[in-house]
Amino acid sequence: MSSEEKALLVLTVDLEAVVSNWRLLRERLSEKANCAAVVKADAYGLGASKVVPALVRAGCGTFFVATLDEGIAVRKVAPRAEIFVLSGPVPGSAGAFVQAHLRPVLNSVEQTELWRGHARTLGHALECALHVDTGMNRLGLSAQDLLRPGVLDSIQPILGMTHLACAEVIDSPMNAEQRARFTDAFKPLALPRLSMAASSGIFLGEEYHFDLVRPGAALYGINPCPGQPNPLRPTVRLQARLLQIRDVDTPMTVGYGATHSVRTKGRIATAAAGYADGYFRSLGNHGYGVIKGVNVPAVGRVSMDLITFDISALPADAVKPGDMIDLIGPDHDVDALSAEAGTIGYEILTQLSRRAFRQYVGAAS
Amino acid sequence: MSSEEKALLVLTVDLEAVVSNWRLLRERLSEKANCAAVVKADAYGLGASKVVPALVRAGCGTFFVATLDEGIAVRKVAPRAEIFVLSGPVPGSAGAFVQAHLRPVLNSVEQTELWRGHARTLGHALECALHVDTGMNRLGLSAQDLLRPGVLDSIQPILGMTHLACAEVIDSPMNAEQRARFTDAFKPLALPRLSMAASSGIFLGEEYHFDLVRPGAALYGINPCPGQPNPLRPTVRLQARLLQIRDVDTPMTVGYGATHSVRTKGRIATAAAGYADGYFRSLGNHGYGVIKGVNVPAVGRVSMDLITFDISALPADAVKPGDMIDLIGPDHDVDALSAEAGTIGYEILTQLSRRAFRQYVGAAS
Repeated sequence: MSSEEKALLVLTVDLEAVVSNWRLLRERLSEKANCAAVVKADAYGLGASKVVPALVRAGCGTFFVATLDEGIAVRKVAPRAEIFVLSGPVPGSAGAFVQAHLRPVLNSVEQTELWRGHARTLGHALECALHVDTGMNRLGLSAQDLLRPGVLDSIQPILGMTHLACAEVIDSPMNAEQRARFTDAFKPLALPRLSMAASSGIFLGEEYHFDLVRPGAALYGINPCPGQPNPLRPTVRLQARLLQIRDVDTPMTVGYGATHSVRTKGRIATAAAGYADGYFRSLGNHGYGVIKGVNVPAVGRVSMDLITFDISALPADAVKPGDMIDLIGPDHDVDALSAEAGTIGYEILTQLSRRAFRQYVGAAS
Repeated sequence: MSSEEKALLVLTVDLEAVVSNWRLLRERLSEKANCAAVVKADAYGLGASKVVPALVRAGCGTFFVATLDEGIAVRKVAPRAEIFVLSGPVPGSAGAFVQAHLRPVLNSVEQTELWRGHARTLGHALECALHVDTGMNRLGLSAQDLLRPGVLDSIQPILGMTHLACAEVIDSPMNAEQRARFTDAFKPLALPRLSMAASSGIFLGEEYHFDLVRPGAALYGINPCPGQPNPLRPTVRLQARLLQIRDVDTPMTVGYGATHSVRTKGRIATAAAGYADGYFRSLGNHGYGVIKGVNVPAVGRVSMDLITFDISALPADAVKPGDMIDLIGPDHDVDALSAEAGTIGYEILTQLSRRAFRQYVGAAS
């Protein structure tokens, strides 16, 4: 039955904005660098099956995903793209990588052994990326691992990569340290391509671009340079329907646990979204929504399916049941909501509602 | 390619435990009360298409969902069950309710008017539930609304209900206050059935049971009586594969933002799950996982797809890459994880991983 008119919750994804963001990032790159797209976690919650074809049409040829299953899903909508799988192979999965023409990122000596074992079974070298850890201590080969005798036998690394730990802090000394370790580690191998920068790394300058950059968050409109104006376009809007508006004229409490008290006259609007829709419970008494350009505070606890907003700031006849409230929208972007929730835009996007009616707009859709 | 052996993340749902919890709750009820099941938000993330049929087989005849779309989905797997939709109708949706034999919960005068309008179009009265607000100030008719002339014309309320705001606080004075308002509000109507208690409300005693109770959280193993032993069985296990184990022998930092420092020798294991899988970012430097019965702390920031654990407490040969870590499991339940995350089990469950390989176990599956 879902349709925009009747849906309780509407998620609008602007594919044109995603493409525009990708182009803007590409224009910032050094001359020799290419711009990939990170589309893991279902394109950060926006829907990889829609985002990937739009980016392919715009000229994006390389995609990064987190898992084999994500790679297989992206392959279905991008038959000729280059697809890297960041988690690499586990025992028994190498065959599925080859079958879907996916290139694993090898993160450990064990993974180089797995990939080599499968290559020898097939009788020819297999392409892959090598991930060297330069300071995250999370995943990745060490520089010493790369020098082990035989570690690269039967595998054909076509990309060397690493992750920056503090790229959004422009003056962090870790950035230059990681860059030095990165170039040192790969110098002996002379790989065809190197890649270091994700969204924020692109803004550290051309010396961080190497041959390929891997923006994710910035594609989806998250500000890669916190504290500075966001050069990117917002890509999502999340609107919830108001189920009820109540006039409160005696002192009373609102919601579970009675954490909010209305002391004087006011009006409470109840919206059809909740923490099951990715509107974090931490937004209770902290978040804002926007109705007709006016910021209205979320009051009381966020319920699983309902949020209560104090709309006393709006004229009495300005809002009626059935109207929509922007949870994320032109006047209240993902970064604003995530700050209110005490997290980052990445987490908000990846938890976006599974229940919302989704619509894709923009020339690329 | 997903299978339990190769998957990076495995979510196991114990349907037998869900059914056992439903039976345990039913046995606590006063003689005349029936036990429904709340299966909104895809059965709190466990999967309504599996949970509902298991409960139907156990004898559950009444289900509550949040939205029309959820009701339509539950109808498909429970052709003869009674299904109430908590959000009620919006303009244009009444026909879809009737078509799927769904009973709306009417929460406002506007919704009674919508439902009456559709009943008159069809030429016969339509069944529904009436929700009276007794202290949440979130959604619901007022006691005064019920007394308006004509408010019940052409609609046939078969259930009167309300929500308790503080049911998990056994000695909260709000419980008895809400109970009194509830019975007062519905006294003039003499409806066939009344319903007040959800999971925690059941444990307030028989005087809160009325004709129907509506447990959700407790069915899925969340403790309805915080601070007391949990009488219910856990229903989910979430296991992540360890991609890499690194020996750290010099002081260094771990993860994004370098928020965790390893000062002496130790070992860090990187697991293939992250906040995109519902392992909240707030668990970074706060959460625990369990490997072979040993609690290991999450160190550094949680990434989108990866979590780093300090496994120094385990013997060096006890763990190898490819082993699994319990994020939620027999020794670390949903309530424990949610406390570490600073939230409640309900939010953890509803955000459970979309990427996990899901398996359903238990006699009822």
